[in-house]
Amino acid sequence: MSYRIEKDTMGEVKVPADKLWGAQTERSRNNFKIGPAASMPLEIVYGFAYLKKAAAYTNCELGVLPVEKRDLIAKVCDEILEGKHDDQFPLVIWQTGSGTQSNMNVNEVVANRAHQLAGKVIGEGEKTIQPNDDVNKSQSSNDTFPTGMHIAAYKKIVEVTIPGVKQLRNTLKKKSDAFKNVVKIGRTHLMDATPLTLGQELSGYVAQLDYGLKALENTLAHLSELALGGTAVGTGLNTPKGYSKRVAEYIAEFTGLPFVTAPNKFEALAAHDALVETHGALKQLAVSLNKIANDIRLMASGPRSGIGEIIIPANEPGSSIMPGKVNPTQCEALTMVCAQVMGNDVTVSVGGLQGHYELNVFKPVMAANVLQSAELIGNACVSFDENCAVGIEPNHDVITKLLNNSLMLVTALNTKIGYYKAAEIANTAHKNGTTLKEEAINLGYVTAEEYDEWVKPEDMVGSLK
Amino acid sequence: MSYRIEKDTMGEVKVPADKLWGAQTERSRNNFKIGPAASMPLEIVYGFAYLKKAAAYTNCELGVLPVEKRDLIAKVCDEILEGKHDDQFPLVIWQTGSGTQSNMNVNEVVANRAHQLAGKVIGEGEKTIQPNDDVNKSQSSNDTFPTGMHIAAYKKIVEVTIPGVKQLRNTLKKKSDAFKNVVKIGRTHLMDATPLTLGQELSGYVAQLDYGLKALENTLAHLSELALGGTAVGTGLNTPKGYSKRVAEYIAEFTGLPFVTAPNKFEALAAHDALVETHGALKQLAVSLNKIANDIRLMASGPRSGIGEIIIPANEPGSSIMPGKVNPTQCEALTMVCAQVMGNDVTVSVGGLQGHYELNVFKPVMAANVLQSAELIGNACVSFDENCAVGIEPNHDVITKLLNNSLMLVTALNTKIGYYKAAEIANTAHKNGTTLKEEAINLGYVTAEEYDEWVKPEDMVGSLK
Amino acid sequence: MSYRIEKDTMGEVKVPADKLWGAQTERSRNNFKIGPAASMPLEIVYGFAYLKKAAAYTNCELGVLPVEKRDLIAKVCDEILEGKHDDQFPLVIWQTGSGTQSNMNVNEVVANRAHQLAGKVIGEGEKTIQPNDDVNKSQSSNDTFPTGMHIAAYKKIVEVTIPGVKQLRNTLKKKSDAFKNVVKIGRTHLMDATPLTLGQELSGYVAQLDYGLKALENTLAHLSELALGGTAVGTGLNTPKGYSKRVAEYIAEFTGLPFVTAPNKFEALAAHDALVETHGALKQLAVSLNKIANDIRLMASGPRSGIGEIIIPANEPGSSIMPGKVNPTQCEALTMVCAQVMGNDVTVSVGGLQGHYELNVFKPVMAANVLQSAELIGNACVSFDENCAVGIEPNHDVITKLLNNSLMLVTALNTKIGYYKAAEIANTAHKNGTTLKEEAINLGYVTAEEYDEWVKPEDMVGSLK
Amino acid sequence: MSYRIEKDTMGEVKVPADKLWGAQTERSRNNFKIGPAASMPLEIVYGFAYLKKAAAYTNCELGVLPVEKRDLIAKVCDEILEGKHDDQFPLVIWQTGSGTQSNMNVNEVVANRAHQLAGKVIGEGEKTIQPNDDVNKSQSSNDTFPTGMHIAAYKKIVEVTIPGVKQLRNTLKKKSDAFKNVVKIGRTHLMDATPLTLGQELSGYVAQLDYGLKALENTLAHLSELALGGTAVGTGLNTPKGYSKRVAEYIAEFTGLPFVTAPNKFEALAAHDALVETHGALKQLAVSLNKIANDIRLMASGPRSGIGEIIIPANEPGSSIMPGKVNPTQCEALTMVCAQVMGNDVTVSVGGLQGHYELNVFKPVMAANVLQSAELIGNACVSFDENCAVGIEPNHDVITKLLNNSLMLVTALNTKIGYYKAAEIANTAHKNGTTLKEEAINLGYVTAEEYDEWVKPEDMVGSLK
Repeated sequence: MSYRIEKDTMGEVKVPADKLWGAQTERSRNNFKIGPAASMPLEIVYGFAYLKKAAAYTNCELGVLPVEKRDLIAKVCDEILEGKHDDQFPLVIWQTGSGTQSNMNVNEVVANRAHQLAGKVIGEGEKTIQPNDDVNKSQSSNDTFPTGMHIAAYKKIVEVTIPGVKQLRNTLKKKSDAFKNVVKIGRTHLMDATPLTLGQELSGYVAQLDYGLKALENTLAHLSELALGGTAVGTGLNTPKGYSKRVAEYIAEFTGLPFVTAPNKFEALAAHDALVETHGALKQLAVSLNKIANDIRLMASGPRSGIGEIIIPANEPGSSIMPGKVNPTQCEALTMVCAQVMGNDVTVSVGGLQGHYELNVFKPVMAANVLQSAELIGNACVSFDENCAVGIEPNHDVITKLLNNSLMLVTALNTKIGYYKAAEIANTAHKNGTTLKEEAINLGYVTAEEYDEWVKPEDMVGSLK
Repeated sequence: MSYRIEKDTMGEVKVPADKLWGAQTERSRNNFKIGPAASMPLEIVYGFAYLKKAAAYTNCELGVLPVEKRDLIAKVCDEILEGKHDDQFPLVIWQTGSGTQSNMNVNEVVANRAHQLAGKVIGEGEKTIQPNDDVNKSQSSNDTFPTGMHIAAYKKIVEVTIPGVKQLRNTLKKKSDAFKNVVKIGRTHLMDATPLTLGQELSGYVAQLDYGLKALENTLAHLSELALGGTAVGTGLNTPKGYSKRVAEYIAEFTGLPFVTAPNKFEALAAHDALVETHGALKQLAVSLNKIANDIRLMASGPRSGIGEIIIPANEPGSSIMPGKVNPTQCEALTMVCAQVMGNDVTVSVGGLQGHYELNVFKPVMAANVLQSAELIGNACVSFDENCAVGIEPNHDVITKLLNNSLMLVTALNTKIGYYKAAEIANTAHKNGTTLKEEAINLGYVTAEEYDEWVKPEDMVGSLK
Repeated sequence: MSYRIEKDTMGEVKVPADKLWGAQTERSRNNFKIGPAASMPLEIVYGFAYLKKAAAYTNCELGVLPVEKRDLIAKVCDEILEGKHDDQFPLVIWQTGSGTQSNMNVNEVVANRAHQLAGKVIGEGEKTIQPNDDVNKSQSSNDTFPTGMHIAAYKKIVEVTIPGVKQLRNTLKKKSDAFKNVVKIGRTHLMDATPLTLGQELSGYVAQLDYGLKALENTLAHLSELALGGTAVGTGLNTPKGYSKRVAEYIAEFTGLPFVTAPNKFEALAAHDALVETHGALKQLAVSLNKIANDIRLMASGPRSGIGEIIIPANEPGSSIMPGKVNPTQCEALTMVCAQVMGNDVTVSVGGLQGHYELNVFKPVMAANVLQSAELIGNACVSFDENCAVGIEPNHDVITKLLNNSLMLVTALNTKIGYYKAAEIANTAHKNGTTLKEEAINLGYVTAEEYDEWVKPEDMVGSLK
Repeated sequence: MSYRIEKDTMGEVKVPADKLWGAQTERSRNNFKIGPAASMPLEIVYGFAYLKKAAAYTNCELGVLPVEKRDLIAKVCDEILEGKHDDQFPLVIWQTGSGTQSNMNVNEVVANRAHQLAGKVIGEGEKTIQPNDDVNKSQSSNDTFPTGMHIAAYKKIVEVTIPGVKQLRNTLKKKSDAFKNVVKIGRTHLMDATPLTLGQELSGYVAQLDYGLKALENTLAHLSELALGGTAVGTGLNTPKGYSKRVAEYIAEFTGLPFVTAPNKFEALAAHDALVETHGALKQLAVSLNKIANDIRLMASGPRSGIGEIIIPANEPGSSIMPGKVNPTQCEALTMVCAQVMGNDVTVSVGGLQGHYELNVFKPVMAANVLQSAELIGNACVSFDENCAVGIEPNHDVITKLLNNSLMLVTALNTKIGYYKAAEIANTAHKNGTTLKEEAINLGYVTAEEYDEWVKPEDMVGSLK
């Protein structure tokens, strides 16, 4: 492999000749061989591209960067956002906790690519654009990395998580409406209970997702606040007047998202409670989705020796040894995602609680976990929706059989003959393997006519529509 | 010990003669000998007292309970709320996951005490009030327990957690204002960085707590929704028309808190995402508080071989072996609370994600953990405030010495001479153990006059007020 | 209330006249009003009693404490261990993270009670025994508290956890043997699968608990190592020669447990990885128990609309509204315990990872969580065993019906006619609601005789005994 | 793109013509678009390669597979292990929870590649080797996937984790020995305490890692047990006699690792407590490493306003804005890894506790998290070792200055003049900003000669060597 020489304040470094990055990126590559290469999420690189461009525009507008440099920087940022340089960001999550080296990776790529765009050869002549003094002007890793991660997380949540969850929520709502009259046995403690409709059951899932979406949306205000302008420790040293507010406006304009400058930059650098908060809502969604997926696989269990009240799509052969087996695989994928999100929540919190003084140095791991959870939940909801939820159908035969067989219909008699006598009827029927009606009459507590009038499953589900 | 005989649908049970509880409470005492007795939080019992009274009023108003029974029930509930029967609730958290036995404990105590209030002797004659048919009328454990736990958690949060956090927040705000001109060295990566003021540093903590309080308040809407009226599976079976809405209104009236009936009772019984959501915000506060307490103990470390920039109150001898030692004990208590809350969050989530069908049966453990976290955070903030935060004072001598000694003041030269030359000055001074000014002049990059004009710590903290 | 004056190095403190504790305990009571009083586990106090007595014996033996003082100290320690002074330890978990104040609480109680035993009145005359110079001789909080918590945790695990888990394990083993010929349908993905015996199913649970017990026992070696002798920072300052080893021997003698002195005292003070390790094994047991309890409630679900393959004891009325309902309440209590242990594991780890230099200051919260988990698991296993596991019986009718109905018996044909044809048979039978045999013959793949010979459920469970 | 048609029991599927996989892999690709493609760890694929080869050998030896098929299968497995087909495994973690589709992916690739090796064209003619009937013979996903994940995890731990941790441990041991006479101030509660040597301090870290390694090694026995031979539900249906034991022996031979057949196959399929157990030990190591890395960055803090007792290597420029800044970046990378492992532990446990009946369906997520943690810890230890630990040097000037200045040297006087007088000396010196010696003499408690004889830091570190 051929190399060129790049320099930083510590001296010279050999960099692969065909790469756009510079000395500090190369140092980081060599010093942090931890896990697979390039694990730093590209979404964060794109967040950087937005903010570097916004900084260039703001710096230019405020008179500290010439318009030619602004345009060169902006042009490279646009190329990055088009995905043209995805292979120029080889660093890992497990680097310095401020993400300094990823900031420098972007600074170096922008500077070197700008040099090319200016018609020159990388490594020859003075750099057209300086990584630190131009691309990083009015910035520090300490405010750029949190800005990049907020941009990345916000985008992921509004573009992937929320639409994904909503898609599933809407399907469940449609199913809930469609099955609103399918009366079935309820189950509490996994034991037979009084009836409800399948539509009501599903309405509970819809409500869960609605609460989860609301909780997630509640976190977006904090997440929309950007650290940029705080520079090294939050004081905004080396930024021109008016910079913080203006640069956030540019980012909002370039991303089309409602970003604003953080009112307190010290918090924005030293704590990442915004990520903790956002991931808390993602975790709540995971809790909800786990419950929903669990219920669906229980209801679909069988085909002959389980509950079998609903039918879900058969998408693939379920077993390499048991022919004809079909499994609730989407439920499994979704609940595995939920388990991952549960753990990621601890990772994000453990990172969040260990900040020191003016800087939290768990930025990359916190951001990467938020991004992973946000993407997995969004993707998994879509997968679950398209490959399972849309196809859910009641198994009417089973539902009717189980409903009519249930001893818990006796609850309807509580208000007529009291809890104790009702219990006696149920217990006797259970012991004898008989029906409630038989025993109710045998015990002399109700007549056949009364029983038929009082014990109607369809009347037992109705008071709440 | 003398006993009396109590009965339930399963038969007779011997109950200590001097206790107000009945057969089902006694069964539970015997069947669940897990951990210390009476671990079920009294706050939940009180939540039950509110709701039993409200149910009696609603049942009476809607024509299904005589006014005399209503008044007897209400009177006992008031006695419970006055703390007169705290020793009548011996059950543990680790019982049935619906809390049925604690619901019955309340039903039995109310019924037996009402019998006494009616001038009769417990165990003699027919019960004046029936535990199931009267006290529990229009109710199920499945909707009462979640109602009781929402009441308990909501009260704890508005009465203990929020005031406690606010008290600490207000002290930190006062300190932040008081120290707004105390310029000190900043630290990032635990390494010397550019300066800021002590007031700015503390303002970050204030911001953290403000975000945390906001996040916690965001969860109260969901928590204010009550399951009551859903009865066994969410359908509201065996409740009179209009019951759900009215009973929530009574609870709101009796507690003085803005409770409403949950719009979807299926969610309210089968999932406790409201607790997951609320605890998520408590966990966020724990993350914030851990960072704050950590910083304060680092800043106060010493007295002679640490950082020593601030002085915190000496409240007790710090060591049983090292005479004269004073430790940041409030920081330690607070961070231990944070560790507990971190774990409780997992407990609550693990409980939340395992609901089945119409019922989540992790109610007691989820509620107990939310209550513990809410109380510990509130109490620990008050303790930390009164015994530590109010007494924080800058150690001006140390602060000034460290500030003037710092190599990172060189950052002010970036915009004058560029990042590379500035780095050279800092590195040279570090190597030689000299001052920045000396080396800046030596290297010929600035004059003494320029240095003095450009490198002023007090000018380096100002762009963000 | 009447008070007496006690003193420490900071001055005078008013202490309730009837209490044995002194100035530092009272300071801590006032400075740490966090959560319920006296939350510091008594087990740790007892651990202190063992070690104070052992220290007195060792100090005497090594010539630094008179025999009269030794005997007075030992006598009070014995009284504490008899439970006579349980109300003299009012402190909370949420105190200084070294537990210094609980160490002083013990020192003060021992000193004051010794004064009484010497025939004097507390608060009058010079103390017969000095809390710091005598009771705490050759000790520091930094080595006593971890010693106390190791003693407490070790005792709890060998006296409560392991016997409890073993009791349940043995019952499950008996049941596994008893049901070794009960052939039933297997389930994978919650879907019907090839058969196994109920005994085999239960043998998996037995294996899980055996592995869990082994894992727990693996942690005992580390836990048996005591910090005592390290004093303030691990160097053993102010201890007589030979002290560490001898004092551990005395503790081993007094407790009857194989305690030894920790080979590296720096680790023993600064890190509590032994607790992390032990709790990791407790968490593994919780994972196992959750799986077991979940299976049992699924298998017992019904009575008419669930799986219903086993019958578990009906211990209490299951519902306050649904008469005759019986629930898997022991499964619920146990899984709630598992959820708590899952969270406690995070608490212990979060405490463990934040040690600084020579001391971890999350000792009380780590110890309290280990003790809680150890007790809850032990108690819950016994409760689950006695109130549920011992009564598990197969529901033979259901088991047989479900078995014979299963489509997965077709797997037996794989080795005869290949996976594809077997799948076709199963799919066709599923689609038509027919039996495997009918379709196997219809499709012409096997004869009736072949089918009967090849598809025998009882032959499908046997290759592994 | 050009396609060919592949079939499974559900029908035809179009597969990219240049790929070796078949119908079921392609179905999974389409049905599970969750997160990045090919997230299923290659280590698991390699685990499958070992076991497929071993199964072929065993099947052949036991007379159920012709030797030609065996050799073809083995040859493809060897190619896979050489990394020649890494791009043929496009599936994600978030698939069916049994990993069936990854098992089939391997079956299909082996079958199709074997067809090529047999000189034929994929998609033409009958398959030389059948994916289900040959490659998967005597197997099920339910026993192969757990076998594959045990192989992968075991290999990773012995090849990456343990060597990595040991490398760091050995460096710390060398440093501990080298610095055994460097007397420095101790710190407890982050406050000045009695002295110890830097070597002693580091010896605590060595001990932590030794305990962690032991704990990890303790888990290997369980992890070495393989599920293979259990097939669908643990009974070993469709395996020839003697298969389980023999196939484990082949795997042991092929991998060179001490694998054995699991004594209870029901546990081995239905629970993955072995992974929970192993990850518990990885988490313990993370707890230890976090403490160590934290200490090192605290001790290295500065350069002028921190503790500064040690010097760590400067590997890269530390700041994009603050010239000359050097940060403890390896500590940051390592502690971020620890945060990830903390979270992964919850993921693994949450997956582990949700098994149902004969199968745990969180296999892929559990395995992937164990593998990630094992690799990250191993890699991060090496990185930390080579880029930080090897270069740790004492900053003797600072160490000496801080030591001599310390008030806690007074502790040496406890045994001479008692705790109270010693405290008075320390408090007075602290208040007056004077030295202990001055005040000790002033107060008349000791003479200058006594002080010099009694208070020698180098004598205060010695009793434990």
